[in-house]
This record gives sequence, structure tokens and C-alpha cells, in this order.
Amino acid sequence: MKSYNIAVVGATGMVGQKMLEVLAELKFPVKNLYPMASKRSAGKEILFNKKTYIVQELCDEVFDQDIDIALFSAGGDTSARFSPVAAKKGVIVIDNSSAFRMDPTVPLVVPEVNPEDLDAHKNIIANPNCSTIQAMVALKPLQDVYGIKRIVYSTYQAVSGSGVKGYADLEDGIKGHENGFYPHPIAFNCLPHIDSFLENGYTKEEMKMVNETQKILHDDTLKITATTVRVPVFYSHSESINVELKKDFDVNEIKALYQRSPGIVLEDDPENNIYPLALNATNKDEVFVGRIRRDFSVDHGINLWVVADNIRKGAATNAVQIAFALCQRNLI
Amino acid sequence: MKSYNIAVVGATGMVGQKMLEVLAELKFPVKNLYPMASKRSAGKEILFNKKTYIVQELCDEVFDQDIDIALFSAGGDTSARFSPVAAKKGVIVIDNSSAFRMDPTVPLVVPEVNPEDLDAHKNIIANPNCSTIQAMVALKPLQDVYGIKRIVYSTYQAVSGSGVKGYADLEDGIKGHENGFYPHPIAFNCLPHIDSFLENGYTKEEMKMVNETQKILHDDTLKITATTVRVPVFYSHSESINVELKKDFDVNEIKALYQRSPGIVLEDDPENNIYPLALNATNKDEVFVGRIRRDFSVDHGINLWVVADNIRKGAATNAVQIAFALCQRNLI
Repeated sequence: MKSYNIAVVGATGMVGQKMLEVLAELKFPVKNLYPMASKRSAGKEILFNKKTYIVQELCDEVFDQDIDIALFSAGGDTSARFSPVAAKKGVIVIDNSSAFRMDPTVPLVVPEVNPEDLDAHKNIIANPNCSTIQAMVALKPLQDVYGIKRIVYSTYQAVSGSGVKGYADLEDGIKGHENGFYPHPIAFNCLPHIDSFLENGYTKEEMKMVNETQKILHDDTLKITATTVRVPVFYSHSESINVELKKDFDVNEIKALYQRSPGIVLEDDPENNIYPLALNATNKDEVFVGRIRRDFSVDHGINLWVVADNIRKGAATNAVQIAFALCQRNLI
Repeated sequence: MKSYNIAVVGATGMVGQKMLEVLAELKFPVKNLYPMASKRSAGKEILFNKKTYIVQELCDEVFDQDIDIALFSAGGDTSARFSPVAAKKGVIVIDNSSAFRMDPTVPLVVPEVNPEDLDAHKNIIANPNCSTIQAMVALKPLQDVYGIKRIVYSTYQAVSGSGVKGYADLEDGIKGHENGFYPHPIAFNCLPHIDSFLENGYTKEEMKMVNETQKILHDDTLKITATTVRVPVFYSHSESINVELKKDFDVNEIKALYQRSPGIVLEDDPENNIYPLALNATNKDEVFVGRIRRDFSVDHGINLWVVADNIRKGAATNAVQIAFALCQRNLI
């Protein structure tokens, strides 16, 4: 089997570390590994598949090395600065930041949903926002069979979505000493504020869900609104998704559809207290769907409860799955 | 000023204790107090306005005493059994359980919203469900000015809504030893399961929000759906409410409307990180409304974030406000 030289940019961050873990777990054929980070973390040792690697300092020249794919997770500014350099030098960048997601020349890909978009890549591929990825996996089967008219998202997002500082803020907060990473205490609270606010009253996170959903589902006419909320949960985002379909449906038909859809685990047996839960989804790669029930307030309406590990499927796993898809489609 | 003899049934429970606190704080004119509870708690001493009272055991005969109003918060079965007895003996019952809420002969009242429904009372008045009360206060001004077509509720509900056992389950859970009150761990988790499940896939809590909203807003044609979720928060429920209005609106006009609406505090200055928060609403009697923004996905759509203390405005305060409204309307 062919193997590849992989760089992980931001290798010491929360998502970067998870990328290394997932590359190993899912047995991605890694020939040589190039962990990279900012000056502060350069020189650190990283263990990968029982071998030790030294973290390199990110600069233009590192991409002169023999690298096939660079998984970027070092923030939007770093991606904006270094992804084009890497791409120009022939490295395929899979970027976890928001820097290139809405660039029309950059594929924005969830492998279960729109792998065909990879075919047109120009060496930069964007990994969608965590809260969008899990919604896409759950909504694509509905779009294919019934068509989607409108989506109302309300999210319940974990602190790990903010990286190690968000995690620490909750950890310290429950002991009574907030460290002020979030603008308000997160312990025993719900913050309707993720990413910064825009002039239209929405947060960037909310508009990411709107815009990325339209791009990934290839439908600019899709009607979408979102309210995104940080909750005192360490790992895994939960989402209350209200959907208006274009055609009528049978609830059991939708459950059967989910049972055969890739990347989805149907957990929908409320009588036995079975429904998706953040704690159960943590460290899993699938998207968990349940609480499926007709919304009687509108024609062809349905309510879903969708949960996934935001660091795995919402970030690291999806990026590694994109790398696998590149191999499968002979794009590398 | 006239004063009244008040019974509190379930006086040792979480809501009952808060009812005593609110009666004192809001200076309800209490002549004599009759705290009541089950056999287990009978005989206990309770301090109210610096006087000590002995908890009486609830039985039919206690309502032979000279009682004007009985605030019930002792569960649905106890209300179903004893409220009619009290009512028949001339006591006005304000019942916090779900036992009589949907009875067409029983007013279901949020005093800022439908106080006129009290006029037809037949000695039993129902206090709505906590998650419904705060939504009603926020939605009534919109209904009056623009008309409401459809509502999509997603809730973020505190463990105190389950009483002392729910509270203890979160308190113990964050220390790593769940005591199993909820069907799954509540610490660092979101449970899309409040009250029991019905055949249509909804929980009773979700259908309460649907049915009680229609009854309180006097509109059986109102289209409503709900997803209700327990989150690791001790006090105050948060709600993401998506509303389709009948007429077009201006967002600033709605903000101005909320500034002059009774029982509401507008907290909507996202640039300065000001929006409703569970921790800030706790121990307050008002309903906090913010994150007001146009929903571009539908005609006349608007998104709201609504927070209130579920034990105060969602239960005890609303019940005491009903008692005040009875006095103001000369119904007692």
C-alpha cells in the first residue's frame, strides 16, 4: 500500500494532538511525520506510532521538505499566512480553520456528504466548522430523499471547541475559580455567544452554520437560521435541529434511512432512555441521531437531536477522513 | 390593608420553601401561615417573617381551618387528591402541579399575560409549567403587536426543575459520583429528556410547552413545537425561541417594546457581551430577553434568547403574583 508524508501544523494544540491520535487509530498510511507548531512549541518531542518526532517551527521553508499532505489546525491567521505557501509548493493542505471555507475555489468537505467536491481541489481543502459537520452528516440523507426547505439550529456546544483554555475555564469554574477565558462564567451557565458578534446580531459561529450548510449541501436557496450556545460540557456538541422537508415522510422510514446511512448511529428508543448523549459520543467518530419526531407545527416538519465529538468528527477525524478520501479518489 | 390566611402545601420542598421566601420578600399581606406537608415532614418547624410555624400533616380536615389561599407545590397526585377538597371548602387553590392545567374550567395564568382569566376561577387556579411561564412573558408583547404564527422552542433547563434530588445529582456528579436520579449522568452532559415520553415521541414537558402556550395565549391555532433539554446548570432555564410573526417588524421597535413590557428586562447589547445568562437571572423575578435578531430564513421571523429563574418566576414568584392579582381584581 502507498504511504504518505504528513505534516500536522499546530501539532501541540488540542485538535492537532487529536489529529495525530486519529491518524494512528484509523491507520492512515503515514510514511514520515512532520509535526509543526509556533516557535514556543518548536523543539518539543511528540510520540507517534511508537516513534519520537521533534516539533519543527512553522516557516515558509518547512514546506520545501517532501510533504504530501499538511493538516492545519493552528488558527485562521496562521492558515491564511502559510496554507497558500504550502499549496504553492505542491503540498495538499487540509485546513481546520475558517480562513478558506467560503472561498469558492476551495472545497469544503464532509466525506460522507460531498466527497466529489474534492475532485476540483487546488491544493487547499477546508474542514468545516465542528457544529456544521455533524449537522451535515445528519441532514444529507434527508436532503437526498425528501429535499430540505428550511433548518432551525439551536446548539449545545462543548468547551473543548475553544481549545485547552476553554476546557480549563470549565475545569476551574466548577471548583469556584473561573479564570476568565470566556466573557462570563461557563460553569453552571449557558453562554449564547460563540465566536464574535456581527452587525446583524448573529455570531460568526451562527453565520458559519448558515453559510457552510448552503455550501456543503450545494443549495444557496436553503433557508437556515441558528442560535449557537456554549454549555458546561467538556466534549461533544449536541444540536436541536428543526427541519422542514420538501416532501412528506414517514418517521419510521427516516429511522430506517439513518440505519443505513454512512457515519451515523441511530440512537432512538426513548422508552428505554436511549437517545444521543454528549458523554456517550465522546471519543467516537460517528454522528449520533435520535429524538426523531414529526413537528406537527408545519408541513413536512421533523425534529432531530444530533450529537458528535466536536474534536473528533467535528475536527480531527473529518480532516483525516478527507485525507483517506483523497487517496480513494486518486487525487494524491 | 386587608391580610390573608395562607397555606403552603409542600412547604418543605424546594418550590414550597421558595414560596415562603417570595411571600415574605414581596410583602404579601399574610395574616396567618399554615405550612403543610406529608406525614414525613409534619411537625418540623418553619421560620416565616421571624415567627415559627409547625408544619401540619396534609389531610382533608386541615382545610376546615380559616384559610383564604392555598399555594400547592407537592406534586400532581397530591394536588389531584387535595385541591378539590380545599376548593370545595372555600379555599382558593393556586396549584403549581400539572394536574389541572389543561382543565378547561381552571384558569392557567401568568399575571403579566392573562390576568383576566382569573375572573372565572372556581377556586382552583393553575400555575403553568416553568419553561412555559418565561416564554409567555416574552411572547405576549409580540402576540399583541404583531400576532404569532409559529413557535419553535429549544430549552436549556436547570436541574433545580427536578427539585432537591436533581440538584443533588448534579452536585454529586461534578465530584465524580452520580447518584442516579436522572437516567444518565447530568454532569458535563445534556439530556434531551424531561418528564416521561409519550407515544408521539415527545416528552410530557415538550407537550406542556405546546398545550399551555396555546391555552395561555388563547389561540388554539398557534403552531408550536418544542425540544426540551436538561443541562448541567443549577438554577434558571434558558430558551432559544424561534418565532414567525404574522406582520413585519423592526428589530429596534421590538427592543423598545420589551423595554416597556411588564416583568421583562431587556439585556441585548452583544458588543458589550450583554445578553441573558442563567447565573445572572438566578434569584430574580423578571424574565430576561436578548439576542433579538431577525431570522432571515422565513417571512417575519425572529430569534430570541429568554432566561428566567425557574424556581422563582417559573414557579414560586408566579404563584405569589397570582395571589396578588386575585387581591387587585377583588376576587378574594
